[in-house]
Amino acid sequence: MKRSTAILILCVTCAVSGPAAQVKKNTPLVIKEQGSFFVGGENKTITQPGPGANPAQTGEITVNQMYVQYQIPVKGSQHVPVVMVHGCCLSSKTWETTPDGRMGWDEYFVRRDRSVYLADQVSRARSGFDPTGFVDVRQGKTPPDKMPGILDASHQVAWTVFRFGPRYGETFPDGQFPIEAVDELYKQMIPDLNSTLPNPNPTWKQMAALATRLRGAVLMGHSESGFFPEEAALIDPSGVRGIISIEMPCRAVTPEQLATLARIPSLFVFGDHLGDVSGGPANWQQSFNSCNTLVDQLKKAGGDATMMHLPAMGIKGNSHMLMQDKNSDQIAELVIGWIEQHVETRNRGTR
Amino acid sequence: MKRSTAILILCVTCAVSGPAAQVKKNTPLVIKEQGSFFVGGENKTITQPGPGANPAQTGEITVNQMYVQYQIPVKGSQHVPVVMVHGCCLSSKTWETTPDGRMGWDEYFVRRDRSVYLADQVSRARSGFDPTGFVDVRQGKTPPDKMPGILDASHQVAWTVFRFGPRYGETFPDGQFPIEAVDELYKQMIPDLNSTLPNPNPTWKQMAALATRLRGAVLMGHSESGFFPEEAALIDPSGVRGIISIEMPCRAVTPEQLATLARIPSLFVFGDHLGDVSGGPANWQQSFNSCNTLVDQLKKAGGDATMMHLPAMGIKGNSHMLMQDKNSDQIAELVIGWIEQHVETRNRGTR
Repeated sequence: MKRSTAILILCVTCAVSGPAAQVKKNTPLVIKEQGSFFVGGENKTITQPGPGANPAQTGEITVNQMYVQYQIPVKGSQHVPVVMVHGCCLSSKTWETTPDGRMGWDEYFVRRDRSVYLADQVSRARSGFDPTGFVDVRQGKTPPDKMPGILDASHQVAWTVFRFGPRYGETFPDGQFPIEAVDELYKQMIPDLNSTLPNPNPTWKQMAALATRLRGAVLMGHSESGFFPEEAALIDPSGVRGIISIEMPCRAVTPEQLATLARIPSLFVFGDHLGDVSGGPANWQQSFNSCNTLVDQLKKAGGDATMMHLPAMGIKGNSHMLMQDKNSDQIAELVIGWIEQHVETRNRGTR
Repeated sequence: MKRSTAILILCVTCAVSGPAAQVKKNTPLVIKEQGSFFVGGENKTITQPGPGANPAQTGEITVNQMYVQYQIPVKGSQHVPVVMVHGCCLSSKTWETTPDGRMGWDEYFVRRDRSVYLADQVSRARSGFDPTGFVDVRQGKTPPDKMPGILDASHQVAWTVFRFGPRYGETFPDGQFPIEAVDELYKQMIPDLNSTLPNPNPTWKQMAALATRLRGAVLMGHSESGFFPEEAALIDPSGVRGIISIEMPCRAVTPEQLATLARIPSLFVFGDHLGDVSGGPANWQQSFNSCNTLVDQLKKAGGDATMMHLPAMGIKGNSHMLMQDKNSDQIAELVIGWIEQHVETRNRGTR
């Protein structure tokens, strides 16, 4: 066998199977430090009906804070921390134990010696939300049609938007999502109250502040939050060492914004069957195209931008929920490999 | 010194300082297994406006599921697991890192070799909530005054209900709450949507189911959820090995309910200054009295019931948020000591 053929075979194998998972899952997990905290938050004055016949009471509540849960492994200081932010109608549960009970990316990355910070988006889950828009309607201060909309994706919508198959109840033959456990995914899906948020979305500012607080972090977003790392960097790039954007539309950026983003290594990840689902509120092929455009723009501006389109690498059948797909470990390794090569090598000696 | 005097002094010291904390905090934490899952959940059909000008879409959502996050230490199988459920306007953050940055009860119990399960109440945080009652008002199907109420405690209300001092801005001289970090507590306070729940509260059923799934667990509740362990046991006592109820009113029970509860060791914990806050929606002295009545009833029915009134044991100044107070480790040790003596010793050999 000629050497070039051997290399070719090696590379094809590498592309199809991806890097081997490097994590021993049945050994104890050793944590240097863990906990939770909030980033940001402001006081807001509210007037509420008193209990019973008591007069209305004016007081302060805290809004726009972002809840963050973290684990720092023993060797965490040798690597750049990773902040993971979930998508629409979901919480940080996205990154934890998969619907079929396997290890989530949160622990996988920790076992690969990365400090992991899971943030619940502002207005979701443990971050809480500003109830004023609802309370005002109940009290007759605002008409019902001015009430904030609640986005609550049904099982039917999720099935196609998350690309489990071409239509509800049908799967792709090579689909990687653990469809036998789809009911466990449905339980993760919770009402999305982002319509209660001010503009710009406070989650962006809090993500930027978190990256600064960590003295540098890779920001990772998915779907609704896929472009949040970029938005965070455009508010304050100083702590953003790398951007990982998973499956979302990339918006147009100004030349000035492009110059800022081009200074940060960026990875874009897309799964399979982007054009194989018809109808529904998402158009993944269009999203993919928009991010390819941004990758080109970033490269032309001197940036280090990578499009990781999994099927083009021989990795087939990944859904929109690729961090929960059956080959989630494999994709985690690809992402960690990118961090090593594009963020940590670049930053070595400067941290 | 006579021996009786020495014993007396020893006991007084013991009561005032409590058992010494047994946890080394600056050593790595070794976890056998961790993750998250949901308990329960049912499908519900909803009709939502289609995106844009599309027709309304009917689909299913999942409601009433309870999110649970857990850590199992290496020696976890030697002890009874502990399930912790938070109170009103809070999430499982209650049990994590304290407002002033110390270790929460979640990790403290894990470091004391207990498997810990943190549950977000159904309709709160990562458990999500049923949005129908709000969506129906927005769509004009129900009038605004029929919209579910949202309970959102202001800083002012929290200060007195949580007994940080006699009135907002004033503290008790011996207060144990880390008042310098009260803003971090305020960030934990999120809107309470329990008014959206069916009756009986699904959290009770899910707590009972969780205890059964764990093949036996101690259920711990606080404040709004303080009596949830009892309610869970009244639905299905088979998995409930012990009940820990922290600071809440104890409701009247029927003779049949009393007989069920008397078969489970029960601990009731109350802090200090119960009668020293005037006004507000909570009457802690009355709550304390109601639980003393229940303790008496349980004992008369042959039960193993303990009232742990901290100031009566010489431990002064504890607030309603005693798991976050400066002496939280000390109280954790008292609770663990009770579990050892009343639950684990009793169960030894039968698990």
